[in-house]
Amino acid sequence: MPSALKTLARLSRDYIALKKLASSDAGCDGVAQLIKRITETSQDFLQSSCTQVPLISKVPGKRYFSFSTRRGKQKLSRAVNENLYLPESSYVEHFAAGTVKDLSELNRSRLLYTLAMSYCCASDLLRSQDQKSPATFFECLNGHLVAQMLGMNPSRQVEVLRLENDEEASTLPTDFIFDLGRGRPKFHVPIKISTRERVIQVFAHQRVLDGVHGFGTFKGILICLTETKLDHTRREVVEICLPKQWNLYQRFIAPMHRFYYYDLPEKYAALSFGDPPMNVIPLSKFFDEVSELRAGR
Amino acid sequence: MPSALKTLARLSRDYIALKKLASSDAGCDGVAQLIKRITETSQDFLQSSCTQVPLISKVPGKRYFSFSTRRGKQKLSRAVNENLYLPESSYVEHFAAGTVKDLSELNRSRLLYTLAMSYCCASDLLRSQDQKSPATFFECLNGHLVAQMLGMNPSRQVEVLRLENDEEASTLPTDFIFDLGRGRPKFHVPIKISTRERVIQVFAHQRVLDGVHGFGTFKGILICLTETKLDHTRREVVEICLPKQWNLYQRFIAPMHRFYYYDLPEKYAALSFGDPPMNVIPLSKFFDEVSELRAGR
Repeated sequence: MPSALKTLARLSRDYIALKKLASSDAGCDGVAQLIKRITETSQDFLQSSCTQVPLISKVPGKRYFSFSTRRGKQKLSRAVNENLYLPESSYVEHFAAGTVKDLSELNRSRLLYTLAMSYCCASDLLRSQDQKSPATFFECLNGHLVAQMLGMNPSRQVEVLRLENDEEASTLPTDFIFDLGRGRPKFHVPIKISTRERVIQVFAHQRVLDGVHGFGTFKGILICLTETKLDHTRREVVEICLPKQWNLYQRFIAPMHRFYYYDLPEKYAALSFGDPPMNVIPLSKFFDEVSELRAGR
Repeated sequence: MPSALKTLARLSRDYIALKKLASSDAGCDGVAQLIKRITETSQDFLQSSCTQVPLISKVPGKRYFSFSTRRGKQKLSRAVNENLYLPESSYVEHFAAGTVKDLSELNRSRLLYTLAMSYCCASDLLRSQDQKSPATFFECLNGHLVAQMLGMNPSRQVEVLRLENDEEASTLPTDFIFDLGRGRPKFHVPIKISTRERVIQVFAHQRVLDGVHGFGTFKGILICLTETKLDHTRREVVEICLPKQWNLYQRFIAPMHRFYYYDLPEKYAALSFGDPPMNVIPLSKFFDEVSELRAGR
């Protein structure tokens, strides 16, 4: 059993390498290998040095637990969905081999969720108050998945306008832009661990793209992990959802093409049957509809 | 000289009273009295128990210092603009009497800035990691100023839409809405200590209001304290400004009617001469143009 310090050192080294490689070649095999290794190191730590602490779930139909270190003061990781977390080594092989699509939808969801959560939970317990590295890891993971499925690497910002007298063009910093080229769709892909009240940024960026480039030029695809919030003292998990706000933003700021969730909240799933319907679905479905997306539908 | 603990207890008591009273009657005299007392308590503490530590200003033409307690480990308050901070008791009387307008523009700016900063700095030194109470205090201060000048109290959210089959109307939570009534202007007034990258929310809210109620129905007025950021280790002050982003948001999300600053950054002031021009001006000017604003110009 490696010590927590050794685990942290190994994770930090691989994380730095991942960040660097993903920024230059998000879709490459090396990125998949680094994500795989970080996930395995994290899972070893969670399995050998941690216990699972049950939580009080206020989310109908979902059960959650936290990881907690066996020694020292009882720190809790973020809340983990019991039904979706399954550290199965064969899953990770599918990810590394780029064959996620071959799994059933439930197993895909489990693979994806477990990939996203392993490092996040290990980081919660090994570092103090680090929100940044889980968010960056999650971006690298999704950048890789989308790059692989679309067969191209993203850019990190979009040049929105070049006026005649303007020497520099204005750029809009975004999470990811995938531009399949002339006559093909372009995708604006924000990535968030959770959205809460910050979701309005996503719609507002989409609005700028629609305004500058015309409606439908950039299709907006939000990828989000979860909307859970853990009260560490009470050990209660809630989901923070604002479906009425989402409906307003979709209608009055800018329409988003897809919303993919790793751990989809029921209240957002219901927006698929709302007025207007919004495509809020599990990320596992992305692998089935990617060819439609590429074709601009 | 009262102890830090006694000062904190007094500030906390008055702060709680302020929050409560301001939420029911933002413009009333009691709110002014509480803000005055909180400011005086804060200034007593800053004067008797603290020193002024010079900072390295990276902001051209502006000098900044921090307050620091004389005893204990050297904690720094947020950065204070040397030219604008002037704890002059006669100023506070103008505020309490509602006669801010009678002061010269520079003295108005000093009064307003000193009112906003005194409690914030005291709170920085007396509490640990409290961002919330300075933000709330700042909201109460501005809610009061605007309510007094417009002669009416604000509401905290706007009912944006009531569809025929919808039992509940959707509401948009905003900082302040001032509705002068039928045929008169309505104002959407977000209040921020600083905006950074979060400014996009302001434009996005404005967009929803424009979309639901039609252009020009709600005039957007942002009130902001400063855009400084202090590096506590290096003791350096910078201003974080994104004027190109602001220009994009103004053009492609929604136009804001006014941007008022207590400590106006040069780069944002320059947007007044941009394309399109944006009204980014010192808050002191609000007192001169309030009758124009009330008339819908």
